[in-house]
Amino acid sequence: MRPITQTLERLCLKSNHVRAMAWAFALALAVAGSVLPTPASALDAIVEKKSFTLPAYTTQGGAPLKDVKIGWEAYGTLNADKSNVILVTHFFSGSSHAAGKYKADDKVAGYWDAIIGPGKPLDTDKYYIISSDTLVNLNAYDPNVITTGPASLQPGTDKPYGMSFPVVGIRDFVNVQKALLESLGITRLHAVAGASMGALQAYEWASSYPEMVGRIIPVIGASETSGWLIALLDAWGAPIRVDANWNNGDYYGRTPPKAGLTQALKMVTLWAGYWTWVDDTFGRKWAEPQQDPAAAMGNRFLVESTIDKISAARAELSDANHLLYLVKANQLFVAGGDAAVSRIKAPVLLISTDEDLVFPPPVIAKTAERVRAGGAKVEQVKIGGGRGHLNGVVNISEAGDAIRTFLAK
Amino acid sequence: MRPITQTLERLCLKSNHVRAMAWAFALALAVAGSVLPTPASALDAIVEKKSFTLPAYTTQGGAPLKDVKIGWEAYGTLNADKSNVILVTHFFSGSSHAAGKYKADDKVAGYWDAIIGPGKPLDTDKYYIISSDTLVNLNAYDPNVITTGPASLQPGTDKPYGMSFPVVGIRDFVNVQKALLESLGITRLHAVAGASMGALQAYEWASSYPEMVGRIIPVIGASETSGWLIALLDAWGAPIRVDANWNNGDYYGRTPPKAGLTQALKMVTLWAGYWTWVDDTFGRKWAEPQQDPAAAMGNRFLVESTIDKISAARAELSDANHLLYLVKANQLFVAGGDAAVSRIKAPVLLISTDEDLVFPPPVIAKTAERVRAGGAKVEQVKIGGGRGHLNGVVNISEAGDAIRTFLAK
Repeated sequence: MRPITQTLERLCLKSNHVRAMAWAFALALAVAGSVLPTPASALDAIVEKKSFTLPAYTTQGGAPLKDVKIGWEAYGTLNADKSNVILVTHFFSGSSHAAGKYKADDKVAGYWDAIIGPGKPLDTDKYYIISSDTLVNLNAYDPNVITTGPASLQPGTDKPYGMSFPVVGIRDFVNVQKALLESLGITRLHAVAGASMGALQAYEWASSYPEMVGRIIPVIGASETSGWLIALLDAWGAPIRVDANWNNGDYYGRTPPKAGLTQALKMVTLWAGYWTWVDDTFGRKWAEPQQDPAAAMGNRFLVESTIDKISAARAELSDANHLLYLVKANQLFVAGGDAAVSRIKAPVLLISTDEDLVFPPPVIAKTAERVRAGGAKVEQVKIGGGRGHLNGVVNISEAGDAIRTFLAK
Repeated sequence: MRPITQTLERLCLKSNHVRAMAWAFALALAVAGSVLPTPASALDAIVEKKSFTLPAYTTQGGAPLKDVKIGWEAYGTLNADKSNVILVTHFFSGSSHAAGKYKADDKVAGYWDAIIGPGKPLDTDKYYIISSDTLVNLNAYDPNVITTGPASLQPGTDKPYGMSFPVVGIRDFVNVQKALLESLGITRLHAVAGASMGALQAYEWASSYPEMVGRIIPVIGASETSGWLIALLDAWGAPIRVDANWNNGDYYGRTPPKAGLTQALKMVTLWAGYWTWVDDTFGRKWAEPQQDPAAAMGNRFLVESTIDKISAARAELSDANHLLYLVKANQLFVAGGDAAVSRIKAPVLLISTDEDLVFPPPVIAKTAERVRAGGAKVEQVKIGGGRGHLNGVVNISEAGDAIRTFLAK
C-alpha cells in the first residue's frame, strides 16, 4: 500500500475526528499527506458539543415540526451585555465543528481553526463564537453531529420521517439558529460568517433579520442560487435516486443506498476541488502498480480509487435523504426570499476565489452588484490557494487580516 | 406546454436528424428555440452514410476482434492523386455526421455544417472531407450510426459482447479510421480536425502516424487526459454502475440501465455547458407554473426538467456500456502513448475557449507547451460564444478564417 493510501486510511477510516469534518476537506488534507498543525495559539479548552431542542417549529412552507434538535458549540466567552457574538454557519457537508478539538488527542481541529482562536482573526479573546449544525445535516450518523431531518425519528414513534419530512430552506436553518441564540439571551450578532452554504446562511441572516446582524462575512457563496447551480445540485443528488436501495427514500431499517450516496459525494468533491490541484496531486498514477488501467475495465487510476475510498468512508456517516434535502434547500435559496437582497443593510466582507467551480466569478460578481444595489456596503477580498472552491475552507487564513480589520470596524 | 418544451419535443423526440447529433448540441440549439439555418452555401448533395468492415483487427491491448464495422460519410470530391483529404473526428457523444443532411427535409444539418461545405473553411470545392463513427460510439441504437462495441453481436453468435469487449483507446479509434482510409487508397491526410474527443484523435493521428498527417486542428481538446479529467470521466459513468439494471454490463435482452444512463448523460451536458449561459437561459424558472419547487420534494425547476427530458431522449439511442468504454478510452489517452507528443511534427492550429470546463485554460496551455517542446509549430486561436466547452461545436465559425488560412498553408 502506498503512503498516500495509508494516510487516507488513517485519516478517513480510523479517525473519529476526521469524521466530523467535511469529507472534501479531508481529501484536501489527506492527499497533502498532512493534518492541520495545532497552532501555537490554539483554543486551550476542549470544545464541548451541546444540543438544543426547539419544542415546536413551523417551517417556511407551513409544516409543523416538534422537538427539533440541532447540535452547537462555542469558543470564547460571552460578555455581560451579550454583544460580542459571532455566528459561524457551516457548508454543505460540514458541521458545527469550526474550531478546536473535542478530545485532546484529536488529530485534526475544526475546519476554520486557522482563523478561530485566541489572537486569531475570529479572536476568542474578544468574541464569543457560536457554530451550530443545520437542519438536515448531511452527517446524520456522525456521533458528533446532532440534527433533525428525514433520518430522525418522528416524535413519539420509532419511525423516521423519511421523505415525509417537509421541505426546508436556508431560512429554516437560520430560524432554528435564531431560536438557539434567543435561548441563550442573544438578540444581536456582531457578525455572521460562513463558507459556501455557510455564506448563503450569512446572506439570509442579513436579509431576513437585518436588525439583528452587525456585519456578514460570506465566503465562497452567492446571494442566490443560479440556474446553473440548481442543475448542478440536481446532478449531485442524481446517483442516489438511481440506486434501487433508495426506494423513494424509504430505506430506514433496510439496506441504505450506499452506492448512490458514495457517487453523490464524489460529485461534491470534484466540484469542490480544482483541476490543477487534482492533476498536480494525482496526475495519471495508477491505483495499483501492477494493474494497468489499460489492461482491464476494472483497473483504475489512483485519483479514481482515492476519491471512491474517501466517498465511501463519508457515506458511512451520511444519510442519502439528508443529501437530497440539502440539495433542495440550496436550490431554493434566494436571500430574503421574494423581498430579496435589498433588505441587507449590514456591511459585507465578500470573500471569494476565482478558482471556484461552484460559485464561479460571474456569479460572485452578480452577487456583489445585487447587494450593493440594495444599499449595503460591500468590501471584496479574493483568495487563492489552488484548491478551487475549497480555498474558502483550507486557505481562509489568506483573508485573515481582512477579516480581523472588518470585524473591528 | 411551454414553447421551449415543444421545441425540445420536436427537436429531440421526433426528429431523426437530431438523434444523430450530439445531444448536448441539441440542448444548445433547442433551448435557443432555433435549429441550424440551412446556409446559402450548403452541401448540394444529400449525404450518404456508408459502412466499412475491417475483417480482423487487434486492439492496442492485444485483443483480436473480427468484423469490426464503423460508419462513415464524406463531403466533396477525392482528387486524382488523393491528396486533398481532410479527416474530421467526432466528439464524445457525436457521430460521423459533421455536415450536410441525410434527407432533404432534415431539419438540422451535421454538427460542423457551419464550416464544412462549398466555399466554407473546410471547403468541399477543394477538399474531400471524411468523417467516421468511432468504435464504441455512444449512439449505438441510432439508425444512422454504425459502430462496434459491447452492444455489438459477437461474430457468429447472437450474443452481444457486453463487458467481454476489450478495452479500446483513442489509438484504436485512429487505427480503424486508418484502415478505412487505406481501403480507399488514401495514404496521406491534408489535415485532421476534430472537437473535444475529436481533438484527442487529431493529436493521436499526428503522434502515431506523423508521416501521414499534413496538419491538425484540435479544437477544445488536450494532448493527454489530466488527472482531473480522469476523475470527472469516472463521475460521468458512475450513475450507470449504480443502476441495478446495469448488472455489471450484462443487460442485453433485459431491462437496460436507462435511469443510470440518463443521469450519466446529464453529467456530460452540464460539463459541456457554461454557467452564465445556463443561468441566462433558464434562471430560476419553475418546470410547471403551478408547482412551486419549494412546495414539494418532487416539484422542480425548469432547468432540471429540461435537462432530464433531453437526457432521457438521448438515453433511448445510447448504450450504457458504450458510455463506460468511451470513459475508459478518454481516460487512457496520452497522445502517442508512452513515446508521447514529441512525435508530433505536423503544424497545429489549436482552437480553444476560456469558458471550457472540460479542457480548461491551464490544461490547454500545458498542451500547447508540450507540443511546442516536441518541435511542432503551434498556432493558437481562442473562441468565445458563451456556451462553454460547446463553443467548439456551436460557435466554431468564429475560427473559420483561421482554419481557412491554416489549411491553405
